Amino acid sequence: MCDELSGAGKVGSRRRGSSPRRSGHTARRGEFDFIERLRRREDALNDGTGTSRSDTRRSTLLLGIGDDAAVFRQHAGFDTIITADMLVEGVDFRLGADWATPRDLGHKALAVSLSDVAAMGARPRFCLLSLGVPRALWRGRFKEEFYGGVRALARQHGVRIIGGDTSSMPERVVVDSVVLGEVRRGRALTRAGARAGDQIFVTGRLGGAAAGLGILEKHGAGASPSAPLSKAGRTRAESLLVRRQTRPTPRVEWGTLLCERGLATSLIDLSDGLSSDLAHVCRESGVGARVEASLLPVEPLLGTIGVGADEALALALDGGEDFELLFTAGPRQASRLPREVGGVNVTRIGEVTGERGKVRLVREGRARLLRPGGFDHFASAGS
Amino acid sequence: MCDELSGAGKVGSRRRGSSPRRSGHTARRGEFDFIERLRRREDALNDGTGTSRSDTRRSTLLLGIGDDAAVFRQHAGFDTIITADMLVEGVDFRLGADWATPRDLGHKALAVSLSDVAAMGARPRFCLLSLGVPRALWRGRFKEEFYGGVRALARQHGVRIIGGDTSSMPERVVVDSVVLGEVRRGRALTRAGARAGDQIFVTGRLGGAAAGLGILEKHGAGASPSAPLSKAGRTRAESLLVRRQTRPTPRVEWGTLLCERGLATSLIDLSDGLSSDLAHVCRESGVGARVEASLLPVEPLLGTIGVGADEALALALDGGEDFELLFTAGPRQASRLPREVGGVNVTRIGEVTGERGKVRLVREGRARLLRPGGFDHFASAGS
Repeated sequence: MCDELSGAGKVGSRRRGSSPRRSGHTARRGEFDFIERLRRREDALNDGTGTSRSDTRRSTLLLGIGDDAAVFRQHAGFDTIITADMLVEGVDFRLGADWATPRDLGHKALAVSLSDVAAMGARPRFCLLSLGVPRALWRGRFKEEFYGGVRALARQHGVRIIGGDTSSMPERVVVDSVVLGEVRRGRALTRAGARAGDQIFVTGRLGGAAAGLGILEKHGAGASPSAPLSKAGRTRAESLLVRRQTRPTPRVEWGTLLCERGLATSLIDLSDGLSSDLAHVCRESGVGARVEASLLPVEPLLGTIGVGADEALALALDGGEDFELLFTAGPRQASRLPREVGGVNVTRIGEVTGERGKVRLVREGRARLLRPGGFDHFASAGS
Repeated sequence: MCDELSGAGKVGSRRRGSSPRRSGHTARRGEFDFIERLRRREDALNDGTGTSRSDTRRSTLLLGIGDDAAVFRQHAGFDTIITADMLVEGVDFRLGADWATPRDLGHKALAVSLSDVAAMGARPRFCLLSLGVPRALWRGRFKEEFYGGVRALARQHGVRIIGGDTSSMPERVVVDSVVLGEVRRGRALTRAGARAGDQIFVTGRLGGAAAGLGILEKHGAGASPSAPLSKAGRTRAESLLVRRQTRPTPRVEWGTLLCERGLATSLIDLSDGLSSDLAHVCRESGVGARVEASLLPVEPLLGTIGVGADEALALALDGGEDFELLFTAGPRQASRLPREVGGVNVTRIGEVTGERGKVRLVREGRARLLRPGGFDHFASAGS
C-alpha cells in the first residue's frame, strides 16, 4: 500500500482540545501550504526508487512528510538509534539579530540531537522537528528560516526531514528535535564500557560555547536582556565564540569512525560539561577517572579575549554545550587513533581508574575531587 | 558494546544556552533522581534477555532510558513507523481538577501518537516523551502523575518508554510525544490507496470529543477560563463526553487488524475531524467521496444532553479529536470485515467516487459539497 510518490509523516496536521469552530477551511490553507512546500522540498531529494542515494547507508525511507506517520525500513545487520531534545526560548536559547536567528535555531536544534546520535557511534539518517511558535512569528518568515537552518545541516549529514508537528505557543518558541540513526548490530557505543586503565580522550577544544554564552549575556546586561551589544561591536574572537554557542558542530565523523573501527570502549557527547558528562560515564561504567588539567584542550580563543587561566579551566570543565565527544580507549585502541578527522583533532586528557564513581582533577601535581558542575533546568532561583 | 543491564535514551540530561553557573550539583540531583526512577521502572519490564516478552512483536529494545540515545533492533520482515505530536497547555488542553489532570495529559499525549501509528495499520512499540514544565510544577507531583498516565496507557499496548527530554517552560506545559511502531514490510496503510467504488467506514461514534470540549468550555465561560463547573456538577452523560475529550482511546486493535488481514485500501485517524480527514484521503488518493449523513454513527450521548440534530451532525463532521479510524475497503474486503473488535464496531458511511478532490454530503436526498472544517492553530483571532 506504500506509495512512494504520494509522499507521506505528518507535520502539523493535528488539531486538538480547542473549539473547532474557531476557524474555517480558508485560514487553514496557510498551514497546509507550508507543509506541502516542506514535503515537496524533501521529496525532491528522493531518487524515486525509495532507496537512499548512497549505498553506504542501510535504511530506506518509504514514506516521509504528509501521512499519519513516516515509514522507513532498517536493513538487516543494523540497529536503530533515537534521541529527542527540547529547546525552549529564554531557557535554552534567545532569538534576535544579535543573539540567534531562526536559522541558527534550526541549526542548533538539529545539531544537539545529531550530537547524541554521534555519541552512540551511529550515522544519523532521519529527523522529526516539532515546533511551537507564537502566531505572529508563524505568519512571518520565521518558519522558512528555521527549516532552512535545519535543512542546511541535515543535507551536510545526509539526514532527511520525515515528520514533526506544529502548534501555536503564545509566549515563546519551543522546539523538540528527534533524530534517528543507524549503527551496525550490537556495535552502539554507550556510556557503560569504560574499564580501569583505559585512556580518556576528547575531540576539539573545550569551553568555547560557554564563553560565547557569557559574551551574549554580558553584552545584554546593560540593556534589555533580549538586546545584547550588536554583532558589529564584537571582536573576531568574540564572534567565533558566540558562534560556538549558537551554531555548534556535532562530531558525527568522529563518532562513526570510533564505532566503525572499534576504537572506543565508551562514548558520550559533552553537552552538560566535561565534569558532568565524565561522571555519567564513570557511574554507568562502574569506574573512576583522573583528568590532568594541563592536558585539557582549552579553547585558545579564551586567552585572546582576556579570560584568565582559572576561569578558562572552569569553562572547559563545567561550561557545557561544546558538543565535543569524550571517549575512552584501551591501549591498543589508543595507538590506532587518527590524529584528526575532518580537521578536528583529539586530545588525551587522563585515564580511567578503578576508584568507582570518583573523578579526580590533577592540577600542578595536586589531585582534587571534581564535582559535576553543569546546568539544571529546575535548579535556578525563581519559580 | 551494547550492555543491556546498563540500561540506557536520555530523559532530560541535556542543559543548554543558559549560564551553567546558575546551579550546582546538589540542586541537579532532583532531576537525575527522577530520571533514574523512570529508568528503573522501565528496566523492571525487561526480562533481562533484551527480547520482548511477546514473540508476536518483532523489534527488540537494546538500550532504553539513560544513555545519549536509545537503541532498538527492527527485525527482518518489518518496517518502522514514527510520528510526533506536540500538545500545548491553553491551546491543545487545559490543566485543572475540573479540566484535565496531569495523568489525563500523560494519557492523551501518548494516545494521539498511538492513534497515528494505528492509522498506518502498525503495532506501537516504543515512545519518547519530551516535556516542558514550569519549575513549580516540576517540583510537585506533576511529573509523577504525568508519567503515570503515560505508563498506564503504554502498558495496555505493550509500549515501552525509551527516552525523551525535559526542560523548564516558564508559562505553560508543553509535551511532544513520539511513538514508534512496526508493520510487516510494505504493508503500511497510507491515505493514498482509496479507489473509486471503495466503501468508506469509520470505527466507533463521532462527535463525542468535540461535545466534551464544549461542555468544558461552556462551564468555564462564567468564571475564569481555567475554572469550569466542578466535575460533581456534571451529569453522567456529560462526564462521559468530557472523558472522550480528555482521555481518548486510540483504535490500535482495529488498525492492526485491518493491516494484518488486508482489509483496507486506505486508512487515517479522525483527529482534525471527518470533513478534513476524509479530504486528506481524497487528495492523497486522487479520488472523491460521497458520505450519507443518515449513516454517520453520531454519538448517542449527544441526544442525551440535548444537542439538536443539526449541531450533532456538525460535531460529527467537523468536531475532530474523536481518534476513531476512517478507512476505505473494496467490495471483497468489506464483506470480510468483522462487526466489532474489542467492543468497538464499524459503520459504513459512504463510498469513494472518481470525482477527484470533491467530498459530497448527502442529506435527505440532497448532496452538497463538504468543506474541511477542522481547527487551525494559526488561524484564530488575536496574535
